[in-house]
Amino acid sequence: MRPMTGFPTAPDTHALEHGDVLAPKFDASGLIAAIATHADTGEVLMFAWMNAEALAKTLETGEAHYFSRSRNELWHKGATSGQVQKLAEIRIDCDQDAVWMKVRPQGDGGACHTGARSCFYRVIENGRLVERS
Amino acid sequence: MRPMTGFPTAPDTHALEHGDVLAPKFDASGLIAAIATHADTGEVLMFAWMNAEALAKTLETGEAHYFSRSRNELWHKGATSGQVQKLAEIRIDCDQDAVWMKVRPQGDGGACHTGARSCFYRVIENGRLVERS
Repeated sequence: MRPMTGFPTAPDTHALEHGDVLAPKFDASGLIAAIATHADTGEVLMFAWMNAEALAKTLETGEAHYFSRSRNELWHKGATSGQVQKLAEIRIDCDQDAVWMKVRPQGDGGACHTGARSCFYRVIENGRLVERS
Repeated sequence: MRPMTGFPTAPDTHALEHGDVLAPKFDASGLIAAIATHADTGEVLMFAWMNAEALAKTLETGEAHYFSRSRNELWHKGATSGQVQKLAEIRIDCDQDAVWMKVRPQGDGGACHTGARSCFYRVIENGRLVERS
């Protein structure tokens, strides 16, 4: 699947891993992984996906955009909930198939549809899940 | 694809999101997303994948195991590089398709095959990539 927005493809591994050209490696579904952490606390808030359009919109607006796989559409995080994620920094990994955003959530400061601040509100302990902030 | 190791499937959304039963939602390839941050600095070190076996091994040994999609095999991180990731905590997200591990990398303290401490060694700035630790 070709991305909807014109990001280039890295010509070789060296360019991919050490170049200064943003050349995201979208998967067969046209997606890369996106991790959002809180810019102030470092807490991982959520994990989601971006297509080329979502990444382009994120870079253009300074607010996190994802691709909703369940709704099959561009998802401007917070557009309805108010939990807009203002970008403090965005990084990409060695093989350019994952981004890490440091964000400041607006609105009530949360990120999860369950009402929790972070989606990762459960610790795995002795094989069971324990809720802990 | 059925997981190789016997994790249950959550019977409904409430159990998935609020239950205390670990019921990871593996994708069509049998994988869930795995984020590793440094337990002391909060830095995101890497993003990779786990199948049921990798998750079970991680929980059993207290050291991060992944599934290598390129090698199509279980990957005990650090087995050859020495960069074993000792688990300080492991969390799972609301819909149980992503885990967040707080780890302490052993060996030289790094996590990336490029030699960088974190795989996310480049910031996206004005559309270009800038290396920054």
